[in-house]
Amino acid sequence: MSLDTSWYTEIHTAQGSAFSLKIKEKLLDEQSPFQRIEVYETEGFGTLMTLDGLVMVTDLDNFIYHEMVSHPVLFTHPDPKDVLIIGGGDCGTLREVLKHPGVTRAQQVDIDEGVTRAAERFFPELCESNNDPRAELYFDDGIKWVKDAAPGSYDIIIVDSTDPVGPAEGLFSAPFFRDCHRALRDGGLIVQQSESPLYHKKLIDDMRATMRGTGFASTLTLNFPQCSYPSGWWSATLASKNGDLSTFRERDAAAKAFKTRYYNAAIHRAAMALPEFMRS
Amino acid sequence: MSLDTSWYTEIHTAQGSAFSLKIKEKLLDEQSPFQRIEVYETEGFGTLMTLDGLVMVTDLDNFIYHEMVSHPVLFTHPDPKDVLIIGGGDCGTLREVLKHPGVTRAQQVDIDEGVTRAAERFFPELCESNNDPRAELYFDDGIKWVKDAAPGSYDIIIVDSTDPVGPAEGLFSAPFFRDCHRALRDGGLIVQQSESPLYHKKLIDDMRATMRGTGFASTLTLNFPQCSYPSGWWSATLASKNGDLSTFRERDAAAKAFKTRYYNAAIHRAAMALPEFMRS
Repeated sequence: MSLDTSWYTEIHTAQGSAFSLKIKEKLLDEQSPFQRIEVYETEGFGTLMTLDGLVMVTDLDNFIYHEMVSHPVLFTHPDPKDVLIIGGGDCGTLREVLKHPGVTRAQQVDIDEGVTRAAERFFPELCESNNDPRAELYFDDGIKWVKDAAPGSYDIIIVDSTDPVGPAEGLFSAPFFRDCHRALRDGGLIVQQSESPLYHKKLIDDMRATMRGTGFASTLTLNFPQCSYPSGWWSATLASKNGDLSTFRERDAAAKAFKTRYYNAAIHRAAMALPEFMRS
Repeated sequence: MSLDTSWYTEIHTAQGSAFSLKIKEKLLDEQSPFQRIEVYETEGFGTLMTLDGLVMVTDLDNFIYHEMVSHPVLFTHPDPKDVLIIGGGDCGTLREVLKHPGVTRAQQVDIDEGVTRAAERFFPELCESNNDPRAELYFDDGIKWVKDAAPGSYDIIIVDSTDPVGPAEGLFSAPFFRDCHRALRDGGLIVQQSESPLYHKKLIDDMRATMRGTGFASTLTLNFPQCSYPSGWWSATLASKNGDLSTFRERDAAAKAFKTRYYNAAIHRAAMALPEFMRS
């Protein structure tokens, strides 16, 4: 059965697969200096935002990604206060980070102000913490931001980027990781979205090797479902400036005072399990 | 972007989503007495079999489903000897079951011989244990089979069915579960594929309630990725005739003498974690 033009389709060329969402209406189509930003009202997934034609966020399933790119790293660090988010322009990660009362400052540095303006308009619930006094929103080049940061500025760096093509390509490179390592305090942690375990195992392996090669002491890849991303299965890879990553503040996670829809302490532990084919 | 006719597409109407695979060639198209069986060579997923237009199995990702519908239940039972598979005509579940040396007999009862004949031809690796002396293949109505089974015939029943429409509809009903309960020995376990946590939470909740309502002592839903099924995220629900399901033979699973590609003891434990939205 072929799909007519009432469907938005994202083709994953290397795997010969595609994911489609039936569209009610296109709400926005604008070319920013960096990328094409489109917003749709879908039949079953609520609002959808795409960047250069690739799904960035949908109402239905963004909670899984946003919770898994933030709470595991925050509950792994013993006492995170200063958090830097690179990318994350839809502000959903920022909202999750600020659920942690111990965080005193969360800087979000996305290169494209257009993404945040679109999120404020079409995903207001993701932006509900943008006015938190601890939130600082910057629209700047994240690679340069980290390069210019004073050594030991952050407890946690979250790289919430698009795929490693276009504006985000440099966020997957050794110089960037080296700068992140320097910008972190002792005990600091970085986490980066690391694509699909099924489709992009080599990218994950390479990212882990690059992180270790740029001074990080250990790495840990977390897996979780993400329906609207290629293969429906996604990952985030943590690296520690020093120390190991085999434990987290499990009691604090179990006793968290804020609500989540996917994350809990058992899910955190579960996301750490590597399938047999990823162990090699 | 719209997809032309060189793509196979499965539309998930209720969610307004679709999953597509680019096709090189159609290898089989036949109408059995029960359903339409099609086999394709895809660009990136290897061979694909569909039943009535819905993905049943692909080379790329069937290992996850087949391993997760079999090894967790087998490592939960203390000493499984007699196993019944309802459905499972592609024989991939049978192959996994027979990796357990303690199993003395595995009966596979699929209503449609055409599925198994197509699997033998196009998925020979899934059928590599069909001639194991412990394997018994029957082509019959699984609902009637369980109804006619002597009480206490099996240690484990695996329901490896298609979606709850068409031939498989009765496999999701109370009378069938009641018959399964009777056909199981003391300590017996049933496991059934239970669709997508994201798309079909009500079905999962209903199945668990029906299992408990038909005499099963406890239930446990396992989650795992399955790229080519709706939402890319799938589940299997276990129920025990008596006894609880909170533990499994973790040491045996960790020391298993056979190879898997997804399953291991840590993954088994991980699959038992329920996301926050499924806890209610």
